[in-house]
Amino acid sequence: MPAAPATLVEIIAAKRDGAPGDPAAIERLVAALMSGELADYQMAAWLMAVFFRGLSDAETVALTDAMLRSGQVLDLSRVPGIKVDKHSTGGVGDKVSICLAPLVAACGVPVPMVCGRGLGHTGGTVDKLEAIEGFRAQLDASDFAAIVERVGCCMIGQTAEIAPADKRMYALRDVTATVECIPLIVASILSKKLAEGIDALVLDVKVGRGAFMKDAGAARALAEALVRVGTRAGKKVVALLTDMDAPMGVAVGNAIETAEAFDVLAGGGPADVVECTLALGAEMLVLGGKATDTAGARAALRAAIASGAGARVAERMIEAQGGDPRVVADRARLARAAEAIVVVAPRDGTVARVDALAVGLAAVAMGAGRSRADQPVDPAVGILVEKRPGDGVRAGEPLARLLVRDRSAALPIAERVRAAFTIDDAPPAPRPLVLDRIDDRSSTPAAGSG
Amino acid sequence: MPAAPATLVEIIAAKRDGAPGDPAAIERLVAALMSGELADYQMAAWLMAVFFRGLSDAETVALTDAMLRSGQVLDLSRVPGIKVDKHSTGGVGDKVSICLAPLVAACGVPVPMVCGRGLGHTGGTVDKLEAIEGFRAQLDASDFAAIVERVGCCMIGQTAEIAPADKRMYALRDVTATVECIPLIVASILSKKLAEGIDALVLDVKVGRGAFMKDAGAARALAEALVRVGTRAGKKVVALLTDMDAPMGVAVGNAIETAEAFDVLAGGGPADVVECTLALGAEMLVLGGKATDTAGARAALRAAIASGAGARVAERMIEAQGGDPRVVADRARLARAAEAIVVVAPRDGTVARVDALAVGLAAVAMGAGRSRADQPVDPAVGILVEKRPGDGVRAGEPLARLLVRDRSAALPIAERVRAAFTIDDAPPAPRPLVLDRIDDRSSTPAAGSG
Repeated sequence: MPAAPATLVEIIAAKRDGAPGDPAAIERLVAALMSGELADYQMAAWLMAVFFRGLSDAETVALTDAMLRSGQVLDLSRVPGIKVDKHSTGGVGDKVSICLAPLVAACGVPVPMVCGRGLGHTGGTVDKLEAIEGFRAQLDASDFAAIVERVGCCMIGQTAEIAPADKRMYALRDVTATVECIPLIVASILSKKLAEGIDALVLDVKVGRGAFMKDAGAARALAEALVRVGTRAGKKVVALLTDMDAPMGVAVGNAIETAEAFDVLAGGGPADVVECTLALGAEMLVLGGKATDTAGARAALRAAIASGAGARVAERMIEAQGGDPRVVADRARLARAAEAIVVVAPRDGTVARVDALAVGLAAVAMGAGRSRADQPVDPAVGILVEKRPGDGVRAGEPLARLLVRDRSAALPIAERVRAAFTIDDAPPAPRPLVLDRIDDRSSTPAAGSG
Repeated sequence: MPAAPATLVEIIAAKRDGAPGDPAAIERLVAALMSGELADYQMAAWLMAVFFRGLSDAETVALTDAMLRSGQVLDLSRVPGIKVDKHSTGGVGDKVSICLAPLVAACGVPVPMVCGRGLGHTGGTVDKLEAIEGFRAQLDASDFAAIVERVGCCMIGQTAEIAPADKRMYALRDVTATVECIPLIVASILSKKLAEGIDALVLDVKVGRGAFMKDAGAARALAEALVRVGTRAGKKVVALLTDMDAPMGVAVGNAIETAEAFDVLAGGGPADVVECTLALGAEMLVLGGKATDTAGARAALRAAIASGAGARVAERMIEAQGGDPRVVADRARLARAAEAIVVVAPRDGTVARVDALAVGLAAVAMGAGRSRADQPVDPAVGILVEKRPGDGVRAGEPLARLLVRDRSAALPIAERVRAAFTIDDAPPAPRPLVLDRIDDRSSTPAAGSG
C-alpha cells in the first residue's frame, strides 16, 4: 500500500514523539484549525506537545507563515523606503513606542506599527494613545497605509483581520498553560508583525521582574529565536535585551505615560526612557538604511528631538488619527486624576530595588490596566515612581505618588506600592539598560526537534 | 494575602512543570470536566502533559476514583462471596472470558463481568456473545446483580452510567494522541472494573504484535501499574503477562469464537485457549478464596469442565440474559458464513510466525470487527487460523480458512491473511503463553512525578 498522508492525530503523535520537524504538517494543522477540521482540543494537545518537544526553526517559520496567511497581510508597497517596526515583549512603564515611532519617521524611516493593549501587569501602547482625546486606534488597512505614507508613521491596534489563527491559538494557550513556550511566542509575535507589511523589525526583549521573561537565559533564548526565525522569514531583524526589573521611567499609567513620551520628544524625559528610545531607534535607522552605524543614527535621533521634527511627526500622526495634536506640546491637556497619595520612605538609605511586577499589578488594581481582555481602563489614574534603584532617600521622603479617583479606596494599593520598594544601606550594583544585542550573526541554532 | 486555591490553569501548569503529585487537584479536574467548568481543550492539554510527566500512583488512584465516582457504582453486596473479575487488554482471537466466567462461577466464585466491544484489530466479548440468538448484553444494574447472585456470573456491555468521565476522557485521548500513556490506561481500565462492585481482579496483559502493548517492557510496566494502583484502591489484583504475537486459538470472528469457547467448556478447544483459561481461572479461584494454590485451582477448573458444571452455568447465564442456551452444547446453532476461501502454504516448511495484527485487521476488513465505534459487526464471518507457529506445512496445505459472505469481495483479504504467515525452514523458538505473573509483592514503585 502507498503511504497514506498523515492524519491530524498522527501529526499530533509525531510531535509528541519528537519526530523530525515537519513544516508541511504545521501548515496543515493551522489550516485545519481555521476550517474546523481540527478541534480546539486537538490543537490544545498539540500545543502542549510543542511545549515539551519544541519546534525546529523551519517549523516555527511555517507556523508563523500559516498564522500570518490566515488573515489579511497589509500591503505597504505604495510606501517608499524600508519599512521598520519595533516590538517590545512588554513591561511596566514602557511608553517608548510613542516617542520612538515619530522620531524614527522624522529621520526618514517609515514605521507602520500595530500595537497591543495592556493585559496583566504590562501596559499597552493602544491604551496609552487612547488617553489622547479623539485618538482612533482602529483604522482600516488603507487608512493605515495612507497615514504611514503621508506622515511617516501610524500606530493602530490589532484588528480582527490580522492573523486570526494566532488569536485562536493564543486564546487556547492562555487557558491551557501553553503560553510560556518560546517557538509559540516567536510565531505569535512574528505573525502579527509580518502581517504589517514591514521589511525589518527591531525587538525589545525585556528581562527582569516586570518582564514576561524573568530569567536572562530564557529572554536571550527568545531574542535569539525571534532573530533566527524572522531572518529565515526574509526580514532584517535585530533584538536588544533590555532591563525590566524596575519600572521604566517615572510614569506608570496611560495618560501619564503618554505625557512622559512627549517629554522625550521635547528634549526631556527620564534618562532610561531616552536611552531606550535612542538604542532602539538607532537600530531602526540602520536597518532602514538611513544611518550606517548606531552612533550616526543616535546623532540623527538627537537632532530630530532638538529640532522638534519628532514632535511634529507625532502631532501630524495624532491629527491624522483623529486626536488632538496639541497634547504633544501641552501635556497638561492629558487626563490626570486629581487625588494623590504619597508613598514615603520608611527609613534613610538607598533604593536597592523597585519591583516592577508589584508596581504593574498595583496600577492594574487602580484601574490603569486590565486583568481580563474585556475590561476598560481608566486613562487618568496611575503611579509616579519618583525614586529609582540607586537613589538615596531619607525617611519620610516621597518614593511614589498614586494618582487616584478615590483616596480611601486606593490606600491598600498604596501599601502595595510601598512594599515594592526595597531600601538598603549600600547602593545596588548598577544595571545597564541594554543588556545585550542579537542579530542574525550572533544567534545560535534552535534546540527544538528537527 | 492567603494562598488562593489553584485555578484549573494552574493545575495544568503544575503537571506540565512536573510538580509533585497532587491527588486533590486531579479530583478537582475531573469534577470540573463533568460540570463543564473545565473545557475539553483544557483536559486535552492536561492529558498531553500527563503523557510527558506521568502520574504518581496516588494521582492514578485519585483519577481512577474520580472517574469511577462520576457514574454509577454497582452494588453487589447482596451477592455473597468474594466477587472476582478478569480483564484483558485485548487481542486477536481472545474468547477466553466466555468460557472462563462460567467455569470460575461453577467453582463457587461470583463473576460480575462488564465487557467491551471490538475496536480496531482487537475483538470484543460483547460482540461475540451477541452472536448468540436473543442474547441481551445491555441489562440494568439490578438485573445484572440478580443474575450474578442466581447464576454465579453475568456478562454485560459497558453502560452509559458506568464511569462517564472515563468515556469523555477516552474520547478525547483517542483524537489527541494521548492513548498510549500507562497511568491513563490504568485509570481507564480500573475505573470501569471497580464500578462493577468487585473485590478482586485478574488482569490479562497481552504483549506482542496483536496486543495493544507490542513491547514486553511496556506491557510489564502496565501490568505492574495496574497491580499497584488496583491494590492501593483496596482490591486484590494479580496480572498475568501473556503472549499475543499470534492469534489465540483457531477462530477469529464473533460466532466462531463463541463456539470455540464452548468447545473448551465441552473439554475440547485449542490448547492455548484452554491454557489461558486455566491460568487466569486459577488466579481467580485463589483470589476468590475457593482454592489455596493455583495447582488446586486448576484441578477444580478441570473438574468443572469434565463434569459439565461450567457448561451448565454458561447455559443458565445465557438463558437468564435472553439467549438460546442450546448453543453451548450445539455450536452448529451459531451463525457461520457459508463461503470459505482457503489460504494455502506457498512452500514446504515450518510456520515461524502468524501476525496477529494482520489477521485482526483482515477480520475487521471482512466485517467481523469495526474501525469506528459506531459500525455494526457481522457475527457470521471470520477466519479459522489452522496452522500455528511451530506447525510443519507442505506447499498447498491450508494455512487458514476465511468464512465470508461474498468470495470475490474477500479475495484481496485472503491475500493479506496469507501474507500474515511466515514460513521458514527451521522451527521458531517456542514461546510460553504466560510470560510472567505480577502481584502486589512483585511490582515496583511508580516512576511518575510525585
